Amino acid sequence: MSATAEQVERWGAFECVLNGPESGNPFTDVELNAEFRFGNRVVPVRGFYDGAGEYRIRLMPDAIGRWTYRTRSNRVELDGATGEFLCTAPAAANHGPVGVAHTYHFAYADGTPYYPIGTTCYVWNHQSDELQAQTLRTLKHAPFNKMRMCVFPKHYIYNQREPARHPCPVNAEGRIDPSRFNPAYFKHLDQRVRDLMQLGIEADIILLHPYDRWGYAEMDAMSDDRYLRYVVARLAAYRNVWWSMANEYDLMKSKTMSDWDRFFKIVQETDPHQHLRGVHNCRGFYDHNKPWVTHQSIQRADMAQVCEWRTACRKPVVVDECRYEGNIQKNWGNIPAREMVHKFWEATVRGGYAGHGETYLHPDDTLWWSHGGILHGQSPERIAFLRQLVEDGPATGLEPAGVWQGMPAAGKANAYYLGYAGNAQPAKALLNLPEPGAYAVDLIDTWEMSVTPLDGPFSGKCEIDLPGKPYTALRIRRRAD
Amino acid sequence: MSATAEQVERWGAFECVLNGPESGNPFTDVELNAEFRFGNRVVPVRGFYDGAGEYRIRLMPDAIGRWTYRTRSNRVELDGATGEFLCTAPAAANHGPVGVAHTYHFAYADGTPYYPIGTTCYVWNHQSDELQAQTLRTLKHAPFNKMRMCVFPKHYIYNQREPARHPCPVNAEGRIDPSRFNPAYFKHLDQRVRDLMQLGIEADIILLHPYDRWGYAEMDAMSDDRYLRYVVARLAAYRNVWWSMANEYDLMKSKTMSDWDRFFKIVQETDPHQHLRGVHNCRGFYDHNKPWVTHQSIQRADMAQVCEWRTACRKPVVVDECRYEGNIQKNWGNIPAREMVHKFWEATVRGGYAGHGETYLHPDDTLWWSHGGILHGQSPERIAFLRQLVEDGPATGLEPAGVWQGMPAAGKANAYYLGYAGNAQPAKALLNLPEPGAYAVDLIDTWEMSVTPLDGPFSGKCEIDLPGKPYTALRIRRRAD
Repeated sequence: MSATAEQVERWGAFECVLNGPESGNPFTDVELNAEFRFGNRVVPVRGFYDGAGEYRIRLMPDAIGRWTYRTRSNRVELDGATGEFLCTAPAAANHGPVGVAHTYHFAYADGTPYYPIGTTCYVWNHQSDELQAQTLRTLKHAPFNKMRMCVFPKHYIYNQREPARHPCPVNAEGRIDPSRFNPAYFKHLDQRVRDLMQLGIEADIILLHPYDRWGYAEMDAMSDDRYLRYVVARLAAYRNVWWSMANEYDLMKSKTMSDWDRFFKIVQETDPHQHLRGVHNCRGFYDHNKPWVTHQSIQRADMAQVCEWRTACRKPVVVDECRYEGNIQKNWGNIPAREMVHKFWEATVRGGYAGHGETYLHPDDTLWWSHGGILHGQSPERIAFLRQLVEDGPATGLEPAGVWQGMPAAGKANAYYLGYAGNAQPAKALLNLPEPGAYAVDLIDTWEMSVTPLDGPFSGKCEIDLPGKPYTALRIRRRAD
Repeated sequence: MSATAEQVERWGAFECVLNGPESGNPFTDVELNAEFRFGNRVVPVRGFYDGAGEYRIRLMPDAIGRWTYRTRSNRVELDGATGEFLCTAPAAANHGPVGVAHTYHFAYADGTPYYPIGTTCYVWNHQSDELQAQTLRTLKHAPFNKMRMCVFPKHYIYNQREPARHPCPVNAEGRIDPSRFNPAYFKHLDQRVRDLMQLGIEADIILLHPYDRWGYAEMDAMSDDRYLRYVVARLAAYRNVWWSMANEYDLMKSKTMSDWDRFFKIVQETDPHQHLRGVHNCRGFYDHNKPWVTHQSIQRADMAQVCEWRTACRKPVVVDECRYEGNIQKNWGNIPAREMVHKFWEATVRGGYAGHGETYLHPDDTLWWSHGGILHGQSPERIAFLRQLVEDGPATGLEPAGVWQGMPAAGKANAYYLGYAGNAQPAKALLNLPEPGAYAVDLIDTWEMSVTPLDGPFSGKCEIDLPGKPYTALRIRRRAD
């Protein structure tokens, strides 16, 4: 291999560009694939048309060393091209893609724990460039490490404007041609995913959704499938991608359950990197036991069942929508910051993860939940405080540890517990700590973001004075023997 | 009828005293009944032994005019006694007993609406005389018009002391003789029920409960039945009595469902005045569809299902225990005042009724919830505010009127609505008021207890600015045409 061979860091995005036909409809007429090889391993990858006669094939190499490839195509100009590149050690901030770890939790490919603290800006990527830049500036200082965002534009309350760019060509009547894609839109989407990657934020890509006036929600099966393969071919090489088959899949009247099964299977078969796959409900859950579902992306206002949902299919629980901090008239978008923070804590001490959103009325209808922009609420800094506590906790995540006198707790047996009294205001906690062992106990005010070590140590059955106010938590850590 | 005949006001308690045998066991050996007559009506009533050779027969006459009676007994001294009395118009504060009205609500016998705003002091009547006097002083200035209280003493956390008096004789081992009753205890109970009557408070008499170390919870069937008939014979003449078969009936391991059915039927057959009958659950509900159940006495923390419970058996819903304001370590007794008030509002705007309780830690373990005493919390004055609003509302009670953009509402169609945003903080409400008609709208801060009329009138579809803070309600009243 020559010293000048192209270099790509591990879990970086390698890209090969080929020139091919522009005539006809390259999106439907041209088949392009490549086989990447690393030693004896063969990784088949789909290419995609990117307009102006350019075809691209992308790969996220997951092993350090020499990779080679050879293309196959039904067009002679694109068939049989070969190449190679050198995969190098990743940069310090690059931990690889996130996967499921310890059954109910997540970790990056290099083993670094990943605790999802997500937010939602459904169509921030469809707004003005100025607003998108503002969103990225906001995210830089926000606690979020996952962003739910849509490929397709959104037609819904507060979302009546035309998008900045359309994923498909749109005719004079405002209806899409689903047989073609708009490369300018997708180049921009690529960039936004990379922008999030730079900020350490996972892009939870929502592939379909029901809020539509252009035809994206009512494509025929062939168009749906072609679209899914196209998006996966474009984006899978970005290590921070997650796949969400849909938002509120159950509101998409034109799709059946077998359509959803097929969509999952297409993404599973097309993605060489096996990014996380979920689907988000409005009312009824999709059957998360199905083998292609990697984690549960749930919409529910009440966190009481997080343990049940975990146990029901032994997969991580991410309650991506549990209502949003805000003041709109819809009940899903008008909870106070205290309630938003409360839901994060409630999910955490049951071994799950909650998701943030914000819906404060705005003179221009710029609501974080859809458009991004700036955050107005009081929950993000408290969510940052919780995130720090969780990151300081057991690397393997918090496992449910029962309910102590009405205080649900999670942690790691005999080592670490986080108990949360929620909106109750007990003045005492009666603990029964595992013996033998002595524990240090910190009193946590989840709203004031304070951690107060209590005089200890504590062991066995012990009584702890609490401040008798809501939103109090206890952190209990085994002391070195 | 002589001018000097005894007089009893309508729904007052008439009592006839007879002297009879003291020997043997008068509680088991002597049968005593009376037939009261009012015109052609015959009302059979049980008498009871009250110690020292005295037997009593009580009746609450419900019709103005001349009543007569004749006794029947298996003892000649008590058999065939006759008498009469004159039932006169009731005093102004006497509206008669409470019954079900308009399917889901309550009214006194004279038609005056009764909206239950209950509290619980399970064994206040078992405390020192001083503490009982303090409880009555507290109740005089509290908003409550119903009190849940037990006949039997209570053995439970914070309830470890011996009662001031025992309902049955207790032997040296602390076990009861269920074949006899203690007249001193029951005379005192009579007085406490009358004391509550004087204060306008319904006495929701809890006949059985599981918290016991003396044997009251484990009597045999014959003793249970005799006890029930005894209590009903004593107390049914007091117009403010309600019957609760048990508190947390489902925790009484020695009773079966057919026992509970039998208890209901005994009370139903024995009570000549057909006072309200319910039974209070811990976990699973008793089948409130059974014909002898007059209303649903529910324990649940979550008010979301009040409408469902109503519809399920078309009887009033009283969530007598929905957790208590306090700071003990048990989750049922450590909610903040805001949450207690919130639950009252949540029940109200779903067409139901909530119940209050208070459990603040106390150096002598004197917790309102069991012992009475004084109130420490911040919810009672807010509950009084709600009570006033409800009393100013439709006389037929508040009927569910749907959910307006997440704000459940109840009222009377086209006339009156009370909507409550709960712990959401909408900055706008979009109303769709029934047409034709113009409405006045008041903004209510349920915590600050303020009512602010909004500039109106309002009609049809209209948008209302709200303060964007939790615990906001709207009162909407049709204006005179």
